[in-house]
Amino acid sequence: MSGSMKTFTMLDIGKTAVIEKPIPTPGPTEALVKTTASLICTSDVHTVKGALPVENGRTLGHESVGVIAALGSAVTGFTEGQRVAVNAVTPCFECSYCQRGFTSQCGGLLGGYKYTAQVDGNMAEYFLVPAATGNLAPIPDDLADEAAVYACDMLSTGIMGAEHAQIEIGDTVVVFAQGAVGLCATIGARLLGAGRIITVESRPERQALSRQYGADDVVDFTEGDPVEQIMDLTGGVGADAAIEALGFPQTFEAALACLKAGGTLSNIGYHGENPAPLQLDLMAFGLGMGDKTIRTGLCTGGSDRMRRLFTLMTTGKVDPAAMTTHRFGFDDVEHAFTMMADKQDDIIKPLITF
Amino acid sequence: MSGSMKTFTMLDIGKTAVIEKPIPTPGPTEALVKTTASLICTSDVHTVKGALPVENGRTLGHESVGVIAALGSAVTGFTEGQRVAVNAVTPCFECSYCQRGFTSQCGGLLGGYKYTAQVDGNMAEYFLVPAATGNLAPIPDDLADEAAVYACDMLSTGIMGAEHAQIEIGDTVVVFAQGAVGLCATIGARLLGAGRIITVESRPERQALSRQYGADDVVDFTEGDPVEQIMDLTGGVGADAAIEALGFPQTFEAALACLKAGGTLSNIGYHGENPAPLQLDLMAFGLGMGDKTIRTGLCTGGSDRMRRLFTLMTTGKVDPAAMTTHRFGFDDVEHAFTMMADKQDDIIKPLITF
Amino acid sequence: MSGSMKTFTMLDIGKTAVIEKPIPTPGPTEALVKTTASLICTSDVHTVKGALPVENGRTLGHESVGVIAALGSAVTGFTEGQRVAVNAVTPCFECSYCQRGFTSQCGGLLGGYKYTAQVDGNMAEYFLVPAATGNLAPIPDDLADEAAVYACDMLSTGIMGAEHAQIEIGDTVVVFAQGAVGLCATIGARLLGAGRIITVESRPERQALSRQYGADDVVDFTEGDPVEQIMDLTGGVGADAAIEALGFPQTFEAALACLKAGGTLSNIGYHGENPAPLQLDLMAFGLGMGDKTIRTGLCTGGSDRMRRLFTLMTTGKVDPAAMTTHRFGFDDVEHAFTMMADKQDDIIKPLITF
Amino acid sequence: MSGSMKTFTMLDIGKTAVIEKPIPTPGPTEALVKTTASLICTSDVHTVKGALPVENGRTLGHESVGVIAALGSAVTGFTEGQRVAVNAVTPCFECSYCQRGFTSQCGGLLGGYKYTAQVDGNMAEYFLVPAATGNLAPIPDDLADEAAVYACDMLSTGIMGAEHAQIEIGDTVVVFAQGAVGLCATIGARLLGAGRIITVESRPERQALSRQYGADDVVDFTEGDPVEQIMDLTGGVGADAAIEALGFPQTFEAALACLKAGGTLSNIGYHGENPAPLQLDLMAFGLGMGDKTIRTGLCTGGSDRMRRLFTLMTTGKVDPAAMTTHRFGFDDVEHAFTMMADKQDDIIKPLITF
Repeated sequence: MSGSMKTFTMLDIGKTAVIEKPIPTPGPTEALVKTTASLICTSDVHTVKGALPVENGRTLGHESVGVIAALGSAVTGFTEGQRVAVNAVTPCFECSYCQRGFTSQCGGLLGGYKYTAQVDGNMAEYFLVPAATGNLAPIPDDLADEAAVYACDMLSTGIMGAEHAQIEIGDTVVVFAQGAVGLCATIGARLLGAGRIITVESRPERQALSRQYGADDVVDFTEGDPVEQIMDLTGGVGADAAIEALGFPQTFEAALACLKAGGTLSNIGYHGENPAPLQLDLMAFGLGMGDKTIRTGLCTGGSDRMRRLFTLMTTGKVDPAAMTTHRFGFDDVEHAFTMMADKQDDIIKPLITF
Repeated sequence: MSGSMKTFTMLDIGKTAVIEKPIPTPGPTEALVKTTASLICTSDVHTVKGALPVENGRTLGHESVGVIAALGSAVTGFTEGQRVAVNAVTPCFECSYCQRGFTSQCGGLLGGYKYTAQVDGNMAEYFLVPAATGNLAPIPDDLADEAAVYACDMLSTGIMGAEHAQIEIGDTVVVFAQGAVGLCATIGARLLGAGRIITVESRPERQALSRQYGADDVVDFTEGDPVEQIMDLTGGVGADAAIEALGFPQTFEAALACLKAGGTLSNIGYHGENPAPLQLDLMAFGLGMGDKTIRTGLCTGGSDRMRRLFTLMTTGKVDPAAMTTHRFGFDDVEHAFTMMADKQDDIIKPLITF
Repeated sequence: MSGSMKTFTMLDIGKTAVIEKPIPTPGPTEALVKTTASLICTSDVHTVKGALPVENGRTLGHESVGVIAALGSAVTGFTEGQRVAVNAVTPCFECSYCQRGFTSQCGGLLGGYKYTAQVDGNMAEYFLVPAATGNLAPIPDDLADEAAVYACDMLSTGIMGAEHAQIEIGDTVVVFAQGAVGLCATIGARLLGAGRIITVESRPERQALSRQYGADDVVDFTEGDPVEQIMDLTGGVGADAAIEALGFPQTFEAALACLKAGGTLSNIGYHGENPAPLQLDLMAFGLGMGDKTIRTGLCTGGSDRMRRLFTLMTTGKVDPAAMTTHRFGFDDVEHAFTMMADKQDDIIKPLITF
Repeated sequence: MSGSMKTFTMLDIGKTAVIEKPIPTPGPTEALVKTTASLICTSDVHTVKGALPVENGRTLGHESVGVIAALGSAVTGFTEGQRVAVNAVTPCFECSYCQRGFTSQCGGLLGGYKYTAQVDGNMAEYFLVPAATGNLAPIPDDLADEAAVYACDMLSTGIMGAEHAQIEIGDTVVVFAQGAVGLCATIGARLLGAGRIITVESRPERQALSRQYGADDVVDFTEGDPVEQIMDLTGGVGADAAIEALGFPQTFEAALACLKAGGTLSNIGYHGENPAPLQLDLMAFGLGMGDKTIRTGLCTGGSDRMRRLFTLMTTGKVDPAAMTTHRFGFDDVEHAFTMMADKQDDIIKPLITF
């Protein structure tokens, strides 16, 4: 494999372009994948705004599927031409963090998130896969690429949000914000036995999707303080768990405030845009003694995670299709990116095909 | 409250009758409930067969709902006339077992199971509720008695079977036997994020219900060794978890054998009919080193458990109605019991109304 | 039992006295205990300063042991004259919070903490015990009152701090502040398999006790930023867990900052004195994605908890004696309280005998 | 690196010898270690007896430490000449089992146990390390080889036995058999907060070591049924957890029988010598409903595990030295092996130096 390929690259803060780069050659433990489909992520938008420090010239993207084009000499269990997906998080599996189960923190804080943050991303005609034996995930024959690609980040992150919420059967769970990752948290809460799911969202299209994916009640924060609305809905008792899926101080604080004593705040929003510290209101925090728990996390990676998400899709338990509101060819990726950045036309997730 | 009431009572091993007994008076921490609906349980059948040592003259039954008729002086939070359900397991909440979280083992082995085993059961016009502040569970206005009564044992036990199975999202889970409690284990596996649910059942009606409640594949053990069939279905890999919902040595052993290394066998079947020890085949057991886990349990009781199950029903996530295959007035309870004992007419659960 | 008794009472904010009150009569589920020994707690000091809203006239104290003087009619398993301890937290065991395992949040936020906060405390010649069947803890014959009394709050809270820290064997654990509860957190970290325990404390006597109870390194915050010192000690990696045992914003923030990705902050300090919100520095918080967990809690109560703590003492695994730096008769309780409030004479815990 | 080396090899069932083999060359992800110290394991004895199916000609041994002699091209983070230990279990870290946390079941049942079982063992002058980036564990400067070597299997397995026992603080824990791995389970129970540790052992030297490592009571099974003795010691209540560290049907069954309802049996004994199935007595098993749990496992491997065990040794919390009852040069390894097989001279662990 040689020659050049088109990539969607961040040239500088606020500036992107489709540019040519050489097709890379995989090292012994790597693989090269020819891309077939990608999703643009709000994180790409954050990155281009400068919220994540990244070298200029990095290819964007971390949600891509494709076909194996080449395999490093030490990669086992795969063949060229196989359809595969790769999670946004690509751990090494061998460092101390990975061995302790924190594969998203591979090598240190947020270290499992390599695409764009540490190396070229995968919104390109070809992309490399590190630790490929553990990171290449075969896509089942009966699963379309455009569904499989949701496992790369949205479903894995959203469902992790629900996993971290420590839901017991029948619990009341609140999900703040119903963008794609919040919708996937709603899917996760439904999947893990929540009894009542309350979501917080103001856009009518997202409210409708939220109900479709499992919300029992949708609170519109433009119609009054969401904490008060949640308290009203729960008879003044509050929720067992709250999932923050936006990354704003206000939603984080509301998520803590709407919890019962003993409740869990599971954060999946990225708090990198606003530099001010988050605040823990002392009463909401139970003066540090309310048996409340705050958990945080970053998209769970690895091929076994992908396999599980694929099973949920092939057996019909999870269907991400409704989140794909727009479709583009790779030639229109800049237009798609602009729509995503500006949240035009009620866009949720734009699918890019190659 | 005084006078007499009709009760469905075990006179001797193999012998039951509807007899009159005085309506009991609640002690300070007890309540008296006027029954509106009950379900007959296979455990009642086991008991009458002599599988559980019980004094002659005990009222049968442990799945009943009704209306509060009288409250002990120390019971708080309830009023007479309130619609309530009471779980089959009625813990004291205060003993060492209860404080450690083993409320079903209140006071010692199986000690939380008091109805019929230790005191009169509740298939009677009235019944007493011990530790009533913690055991009376208000039935929501929008939930019918005939649905609520499934929380007393079937849903609580079946879902506990799934909880004990340590299911991770996307796991493959096998449920052995699809009687009412096995069907509820299927509901539980579906509720807790299983990716693929394989059930083992030969009766066509139960197979159909099993699919309705979440089974992706149904294995008919009359058509070949179920372990081999499960291995075929899973590409030779086996299951992540297996739930034994019958109480037979063969199903217990098959449940162990169909597990991957690292898998969990969750037992909810009652192994009291066959006195021989259960066998752990050494290869299936991984020679004691296969990271397999065997968990056991008895119906989770208490009002908070009931509240959670009610929420799952009122928000439409669990609907037990299809398990009620037959309905009888209390006058026909003996006939219903005979049908249940003989498994006539594809009976699953007979509902008794008062 | 009738007549009057001496009590150590808060008359108003900043004002305490020993005053007479009638000896109370236990209700059906309560017990009356004749006090033999008590410990004064920093929480009593907080309360008198006004940090906890309390009605004037409440008896102070929540760490007391004694002898059963009278039993309510519905209390089972105890006899008058028995030596007993009662935890600072006295749950009802039956409410929804208690049934879900959050007994310290009995009935709602911090609701298990009843002495002084909701009813008269137990620094008095006699005191009542609610839900006595579950809250009276027999003291083993071979355990002295002055050791047993440490189970009421200090050991239970401190060890809970270590339990919430999710320690895996060999972990590095930091404990901020080595007052009595911090020392007990050090005991807890040692007890639960920490590999290396780093404590933060500046007073030489407490530093020495800290080493005696298990600290491998003691950081003096007067000699430089404790986070930097901890980073130096850990080769720049940070700690697996940090326990905040003071209740100051600075220590809370330092506890978060010294954690590795994936680490746990276990808060046991009472953040009720300073009304400003706690701050989560975004980098220390991993931008909400660092797999860090913040857990909070309030002293674990109930007789089973006490039984466990007593076992650890009678088998020689935990010895709280060195924390008793001062001893007083009940007549000198006001003097003892003043010493505690002013932290005179390197006081850690003053023991009051009756 | 070339030339030949001495190895301790199984020629056939019942037949061992020191023979020469070529020094192997590491592949890209492997390392070559020059051995400095080894321990002989009872598993080696089982293997030579034929209890584990192994090709003739395999080198024995899986507990060795040494110095890095050569590194594969893809191994990162190490240098030649570094002192290292390697766990008996050497996972790939990337397969589905490893990603799910079951690294000892790497690739399938017991698959993490590669030395001797799948490839040459490491009781040889040199040995290969698979997946070396994750399996090479640096030995701290202040830790002697003869202590570090206990982390390879004995401490990791024994402490895993305690981890699987789900010990809560103050629990009563029974350990059946006090050979080296049983003694390490006692160390583990002590390390994880057990309140009372009862061990079962008849040999006086092992009884003494057992007390030294944390046993509060030692039951001699030659003086009466151990279950009855345990019941007597616990006032008829039984234990919270039992660790089986022998691999005999009798001890397994006794371990189940001595448990309270709600208790956990943690098996670490290898049940490969006796082909008959293990028996679960129905009463001991609570008829499948006693909330009892049976957990099994195989030595936890990987460098992070080793690092934790080393920390426990360097901070003085665990000291394995007393288990080394005999020492031999590698030239006397056959003699040492015979002593171990015949349990001569109260041998516990023979240390082999190179």
